[in-house]
Amino acid sequence: MIYRVDINCDLGESFGRYKLGQDDKILKLITSANIACGFHAGDPRVMYQTVKMAYEQGVAIGAHPGYPDLNGFGRREMKLSADEIYQLMVYQIGALQGFARLFGVKVEHVKPHGALYNQAAKDRVLAEAVAKAVADLDQELILFGLAGSELVRAGEKAGLRVAQEVFADRTYQADGTLTPRSRPDALIHDSDLAVKRVVRMIKEGKVETVDGAEISIKADTICVHGDEETALEFVKKLRAGLEKEGIEISKVGDIR
Amino acid sequence: MIYRVDINCDLGESFGRYKLGQDDKILKLITSANIACGFHAGDPRVMYQTVKMAYEQGVAIGAHPGYPDLNGFGRREMKLSADEIYQLMVYQIGALQGFARLFGVKVEHVKPHGALYNQAAKDRVLAEAVAKAVADLDQELILFGLAGSELVRAGEKAGLRVAQEVFADRTYQADGTLTPRSRPDALIHDSDLAVKRVVRMIKEGKVETVDGAEISIKADTICVHGDEETALEFVKKLRAGLEKEGIEISKVGDIR
Amino acid sequence: MIYRVDINCDLGESFGRYKLGQDDKILKLITSANIACGFHAGDPRVMYQTVKMAYEQGVAIGAHPGYPDLNGFGRREMKLSADEIYQLMVYQIGALQGFARLFGVKVEHVKPHGALYNQAAKDRVLAEAVAKAVADLDQELILFGLAGSELVRAGEKAGLRVAQEVFADRTYQADGTLTPRSRPDALIHDSDLAVKRVVRMIKEGKVETVDGAEISIKADTICVHGDEETALEFVKKLRAGLEKEGIEISKVGDIR
Amino acid sequence: MIYRVDINCDLGESFGRYKLGQDDKILKLITSANIACGFHAGDPRVMYQTVKMAYEQGVAIGAHPGYPDLNGFGRREMKLSADEIYQLMVYQIGALQGFARLFGVKVEHVKPHGALYNQAAKDRVLAEAVAKAVADLDQELILFGLAGSELVRAGEKAGLRVAQEVFADRTYQADGTLTPRSRPDALIHDSDLAVKRVVRMIKEGKVETVDGAEISIKADTICVHGDEETALEFVKKLRAGLEKEGIEISKVGDIR
Repeated sequence: MIYRVDINCDLGESFGRYKLGQDDKILKLITSANIACGFHAGDPRVMYQTVKMAYEQGVAIGAHPGYPDLNGFGRREMKLSADEIYQLMVYQIGALQGFARLFGVKVEHVKPHGALYNQAAKDRVLAEAVAKAVADLDQELILFGLAGSELVRAGEKAGLRVAQEVFADRTYQADGTLTPRSRPDALIHDSDLAVKRVVRMIKEGKVETVDGAEISIKADTICVHGDEETALEFVKKLRAGLEKEGIEISKVGDIR
Repeated sequence: MIYRVDINCDLGESFGRYKLGQDDKILKLITSANIACGFHAGDPRVMYQTVKMAYEQGVAIGAHPGYPDLNGFGRREMKLSADEIYQLMVYQIGALQGFARLFGVKVEHVKPHGALYNQAAKDRVLAEAVAKAVADLDQELILFGLAGSELVRAGEKAGLRVAQEVFADRTYQADGTLTPRSRPDALIHDSDLAVKRVVRMIKEGKVETVDGAEISIKADTICVHGDEETALEFVKKLRAGLEKEGIEISKVGDIR
Repeated sequence: MIYRVDINCDLGESFGRYKLGQDDKILKLITSANIACGFHAGDPRVMYQTVKMAYEQGVAIGAHPGYPDLNGFGRREMKLSADEIYQLMVYQIGALQGFARLFGVKVEHVKPHGALYNQAAKDRVLAEAVAKAVADLDQELILFGLAGSELVRAGEKAGLRVAQEVFADRTYQADGTLTPRSRPDALIHDSDLAVKRVVRMIKEGKVETVDGAEISIKADTICVHGDEETALEFVKKLRAGLEKEGIEISKVGDIR
Repeated sequence: MIYRVDINCDLGESFGRYKLGQDDKILKLITSANIACGFHAGDPRVMYQTVKMAYEQGVAIGAHPGYPDLNGFGRREMKLSADEIYQLMVYQIGALQGFARLFGVKVEHVKPHGALYNQAAKDRVLAEAVAKAVADLDQELILFGLAGSELVRAGEKAGLRVAQEVFADRTYQADGTLTPRSRPDALIHDSDLAVKRVVRMIKEGKVETVDGAEISIKADTICVHGDEETALEFVKKLRAGLEKEGIEISKVGDIR
């Protein structure tokens, strides 16, 4: 039995004079880059540079579309119609595909950002609008969504390959959703435990919930962060832990 | 000897609740649509609808990228670096290519908007940045530029097919540039004369300047407007005039 | 017994090249102008011109702040924190106060726009953030809110003078809220009936609901529209109807 | 003979999730804060917090309006009409005045930002539009401009009190303008020399130019930076140097 998993990170979230993240460093540790598309973060220059760096590192290039809310970093809920969601997805993914084409590569996956990601995890209509935009643009695109969410279902229904995403540093509730950050038990601070949990998700397809129960979960890709030194350290530890357990780390498109 | 010419118009310049132009009407009279890409005008919804209408009418879909200045409608000069120009072109054209892909068609041409168009007509560095972005995205894209301008030269140098654009309702100066709108003799108000001038540009490759001299000009495509009833009437008259003279009207890609 | 009422209208909703409304015409028919402040609509030029016109017509100048969502015209719900609401109110009202100062007059009232208005009508936390911003800026500002809403209560609690707003062309539900536009009985198309209802609201403080019941309502100001010819006609009819009934039309600040 | 000088710094240039500068630290070292107003940088939340901090530190609050170009940080030249400049000044200063009013204080000065500052230093029409906006808003506002520039002249002509600004770390050309950053001799890297030059500007009203000549200069306020640790160190050194020379450091409004 061979186990494989992808490691993804949000990148290209700088804007103009504003710098965010350590994209050059985290790119050496991940297999999939979710690149902001200019709505919640990123701009044409940042997109160009980030696509170039990801290309040079051999990391899979993905679109990371969000709400048109730079001031709120795409984290504030908005109420858009399904048509509006569909159209803003097409716009942002299309723009990123332009930059990918410059380097002769394809955008390989799409992962919605922030409030859009969270709302699409629960709201079927919204999830289907997201999935339809992705499928209409390129049937070979892989849709990243919260493991077990409406977005995953919508992607499968649209005939897309879907990557179920898990979070190493977050706890899960009985219904498979993430414990809200407002709760004290939302985060896992013990990095050894975090690695152990991810290994179990991959090998056994299970994770313990905050109430001590156990739920099934599918882990195709692990979300990591690259903005702080400790985040980079954790990713190194995670990689080491996965490799020690014989779990191959490769981009979703190479798996199967 | 067969004469052919393209007729182009700027479209998709509405934004959110703001409506501009009579896109549905003018689309029946032109062969190339230059569609705003969300920076100086247009938004994802408007782009979707405009691409759809152009597709349904069989009109060539083109990108109409502009400066990031919605408030100034892209008509205010900005001083951007060549890299910034290149990147904002890729972003906007890429986004429109996304919408075109939904309908299984390609973006066929690119025409910069407003101040970007005017600055690229005179500034070689800027013109080459525009042309390089177009060529890097798709070598088959046709670049529209002011007849005889730096942009036309930059497009040819980049190996692109170029469409030289003429204006039916504007006068020309001795150096081939348009008479600035600030001058009283900038516009041609007599529509019969306007048609006659265009016919001569196409058949003889010549146009009379404001000083009464005569200069050479190449007319691959004619720029028209569609925002007012009189503009629509003029395009009908222009079409009739061209057809009476045996000049075929077809999109640039079908010519040659 | 003297009856008085104010007539207000949203103005200054043009943006750059985009024109909306017939501000010059409606200004002759109203007593209070709610002027967009550059977030959901309006820009510095439009604000300058609209304040100038209102000043010249002797119409009360009010701020009409909205969500930072030009593309959605401030009509799409957003989830902002109370602090964010407070701060965006201060920013927008402050900007309009700048323009008023140019003409030696004061901003007299504040009416939130679109989704912000609707959310503040129901959500107490949000309503109090709105009211606090208004009160902290100028204790003499009059807060306009949906008659009987949380916003009215929040304004009173903040020590502000409040103007309860009624709608001539909309129906009311049993709980005093407007019937949603999605329902077929949301609008009153018979302009005579509309005028009659408003007169009753003013004189008797009552309005019939969609279910045929009767509720109490306070009508300090009537919201009208000025974007179309029929809207202007209705306002003329409304004014005539009010005057015939001996109801004085004057800005809120002059009443009492 | 008592010498006095003001020290000013640009502040509040963060935006949403993007943090820029160390405003809390530099505020302890300066007498005038130029606070970004949401166009080239800053947002309502950042403005609120920055005004609050400046108020608490007793630092003079100034508006720092710029071009509507967040992506270019207001550093890219734009070509706006005098009316547009006037209106965007009023909008931004007005917005900041709103925040100042919350704390019961006044905006005391205005310093244009980036490309607007540079263009207003040379272009009389633009400079007069800037000065007129400031004067029309509040005749007591102090206008900060490059020493000896058109902006200074325009301010005086408009009847405003003007503060001539000098730069400690920049060299000057024979005509009194700053040596462009593109030239190798634009910056003064020796901090002792920088302090010595500033002292001479204040006490003797003279500065040596890059060509070794000597020009007259008036130094009402010194521009410093607060974004990096070395910048903070320099300001401390500058303050010590000024104090050693018996030069009082106080905000412009307290001088004379």
